[in-house]
Amino acid sequence: MERIITTEVKNHVGERIRVSGWLHSLRRLGGITFLVIRDGWGTMQAVAEQEAELAPLLEQNAGVESVIAVEGIVNSEAQAPGGVELHDLRIEVVVPISEPPAITLSKRKLKANVDTLLDHAVVTNRHPTRRAIQRLAAGAMGAFRDLLTSRGFTEIQTPKLVAAATESGANVFKLDYFGRPAFLAQSPQLYKQIMVGVFERVFEVGPVFRAEPHDTARHLNEYVSLDAEFGFIENHFTVMALLRDVLAHILATFTQNYGEELELLQVRMPAVPPEIPAIHFAQAQELIFKLHHVDVRGEPDLSPQDERWLGAWAQQEFGSDFLYVAGYPMRKRPFYTHPELERSEYSNSFDLIFRGTELVTGGQRLHRYEDYVAALQRAGLSLEPFAEYLEAFKFGMPPHGGFAIGLERLLMQLIGLPNVKLAATFPRDISRLKP
Amino acid sequence: MERIITTEVKNHVGERIRVSGWLHSLRRLGGITFLVIRDGWGTMQAVAEQEAELAPLLEQNAGVESVIAVEGIVNSEAQAPGGVELHDLRIEVVVPISEPPAITLSKRKLKANVDTLLDHAVVTNRHPTRRAIQRLAAGAMGAFRDLLTSRGFTEIQTPKLVAAATESGANVFKLDYFGRPAFLAQSPQLYKQIMVGVFERVFEVGPVFRAEPHDTARHLNEYVSLDAEFGFIENHFTVMALLRDVLAHILATFTQNYGEELELLQVRMPAVPPEIPAIHFAQAQELIFKLHHVDVRGEPDLSPQDERWLGAWAQQEFGSDFLYVAGYPMRKRPFYTHPELERSEYSNSFDLIFRGTELVTGGQRLHRYEDYVAALQRAGLSLEPFAEYLEAFKFGMPPHGGFAIGLERLLMQLIGLPNVKLAATFPRDISRLKP
Repeated sequence: MERIITTEVKNHVGERIRVSGWLHSLRRLGGITFLVIRDGWGTMQAVAEQEAELAPLLEQNAGVESVIAVEGIVNSEAQAPGGVELHDLRIEVVVPISEPPAITLSKRKLKANVDTLLDHAVVTNRHPTRRAIQRLAAGAMGAFRDLLTSRGFTEIQTPKLVAAATESGANVFKLDYFGRPAFLAQSPQLYKQIMVGVFERVFEVGPVFRAEPHDTARHLNEYVSLDAEFGFIENHFTVMALLRDVLAHILATFTQNYGEELELLQVRMPAVPPEIPAIHFAQAQELIFKLHHVDVRGEPDLSPQDERWLGAWAQQEFGSDFLYVAGYPMRKRPFYTHPELERSEYSNSFDLIFRGTELVTGGQRLHRYEDYVAALQRAGLSLEPFAEYLEAFKFGMPPHGGFAIGLERLLMQLIGLPNVKLAATFPRDISRLKP
Repeated sequence: MERIITTEVKNHVGERIRVSGWLHSLRRLGGITFLVIRDGWGTMQAVAEQEAELAPLLEQNAGVESVIAVEGIVNSEAQAPGGVELHDLRIEVVVPISEPPAITLSKRKLKANVDTLLDHAVVTNRHPTRRAIQRLAAGAMGAFRDLLTSRGFTEIQTPKLVAAATESGANVFKLDYFGRPAFLAQSPQLYKQIMVGVFERVFEVGPVFRAEPHDTARHLNEYVSLDAEFGFIENHFTVMALLRDVLAHILATFTQNYGEELELLQVRMPAVPPEIPAIHFAQAQELIFKLHHVDVRGEPDLSPQDERWLGAWAQQEFGSDFLYVAGYPMRKRPFYTHPELERSEYSNSFDLIFRGTELVTGGQRLHRYEDYVAALQRAGLSLEPFAEYLEAFKFGMPPHGGFAIGLERLLMQLIGLPNVKLAATFPRDISRLKP
């Protein structure tokens, strides 16, 4: 008998069908036994009214997480999860498991501390809430690609092994490359810019590596970056408009196709306004002084408290969960950042603040060769490691810009997870390289 | 005036429009000057009949690769590439470039040796033939994801930083991870298997790293792997059927959406038969003995010559560019390989041979915990580095299998490139870490 996947069983009421998967739970209530079978897509209930139906499980000492196949008749049953359940069972044990896993998967919520959950991620990831997070991750990647492809962007895959640690700011991992030093790319920034010279509009979904020695709820040493970069922009506002559409499409995809996951994770979905409100960095600091009597004017960056205040203001003023802060001072931004035309101490870069926390950074980049030479010299950097990167600008680059969305951070903030590591499938932190 | 992209200009005959991009070439013929403008999607011709139209270029000494915008009237012109050209030009120079790049981009074919092309990949990648290869790469990734998504597969992103060099065969890169050793994943093999325990059907598109110290036309030290793995299979023939459909979908996508690229690269497209012919490894060796009087029986693997002979045989016997060889001896296959049920010296693994060269490897994997313990012990490997991986099998894994397609190798073999490095955007080899 051909197997039916659990989420399709509701279309077979009255038929005898076969499902395959894992024995998610087994609960005996008097003479009746409720089994939950989990497959790759969902779970469903089966009811054994005769002890004989359970014989294959009992004979092989097959407990939860055993791989099984169950044949039965599909009954409509409003009480059952999903509205259907199987009766008159014939159970087949494919792989019997007698020892229960360290993580209890059959409860509605996972009940262990973060470290235990992550130590056993191999099993933890099977829990419905963990699967929901990972499905949203897949959905976000797909929606990101779909929106950008529909706008004429080309997908690229840029090298993760690079010859020099050319970006400032974050620490990089170093390795031995056939007797020479090599580094792991901390972002595809320089390559995606180079590729604007090839395709104008490019995106990449891939791993980035940060050797930051911090063990916090907001740090990962490897994460998935959703990168976009494109040419012939007016300025950073062109980039902000695209980012708005990308986020709106990701969220619309969640609402349309991931309703069950959103419900399971109790996600409070934000609305993305047609135009996300924007405030200049200098005005934002003035506003904080006016509203909260804290003088942060002249600071080169916003503090987490500043971001919370601004988030609250955007909520109150515009009813928006999102706020752009544009025009960050040049001195805290990387060398490739394009300055404002009128006030060169400010930049054409921005942060997107979501519910009071920075979510995405982006901006316009320099595009003239001589501007790069000057910027690198100003930053005290040697030109030599940048020779190939600079070749792109030497031979013609249009005004361009882009942004990078950290996939796990997006999910953490949207779902309201207490730790970014819970948004990763197999997180890497300063002490965690396994599983 | 809003910009029109070059591939859309044909829909604006008779109108005055604006295109933006790079000055791809400039050719003076008597009093007439032909300009080719290249943007992210294509190229188009513009014709200057008055010297004054060229003044902005001449004044700023703007040569090829200058970023320009050109306004003009669209004329139908059968002789012009794409069937249209611009007249009555108003040229605007966005970024003037006076020095020509090291690689001449304006010729139909690139005329430099491989090393020079790759040294200047930043510019080389702008050439139409190079762009065509990269577009096919993007198309292959998209088609791979689309087919698998339509079959219920979930996209995953697995860590590239791992604690132990757990796969045999290929060499791995080692790095310092906060004072401890870490390694770069040489494939997502173990993680994609673990994730079969979560979603049953998974795929990943991402970089893999091989520290193989060979500098050949077939080696890359970093490449893009298209990985699929799925559960509840019958045996390796289930995997072979899926791989057939994946390749058929990639090739159909090329034919449908990448006609111009295929033409430019003069790709001879293969047909994928509804069922790809398959031969057992032992029979393949018998066949070679019969047809070519060379006795390779008892050899644990096929040589390149063997593969060529088998490819020719498949062509002659079935008219097929593709041939599966199934049942490779266990002793040359990795520890997780599932043996044949009847003859345990052979495996449930396969290679796909395309036009006489191995293209894809795949197979059924072990799925019982005790089989892994025995296999690792037989291979002389310690269980400890595999503890987390083994947790997946300890807690229930269905029969499963999968395959991995090397993106660059697929493109090299399909296009008939002389070197796999030419199928990569920024290749990494033993002496190349830049650009």
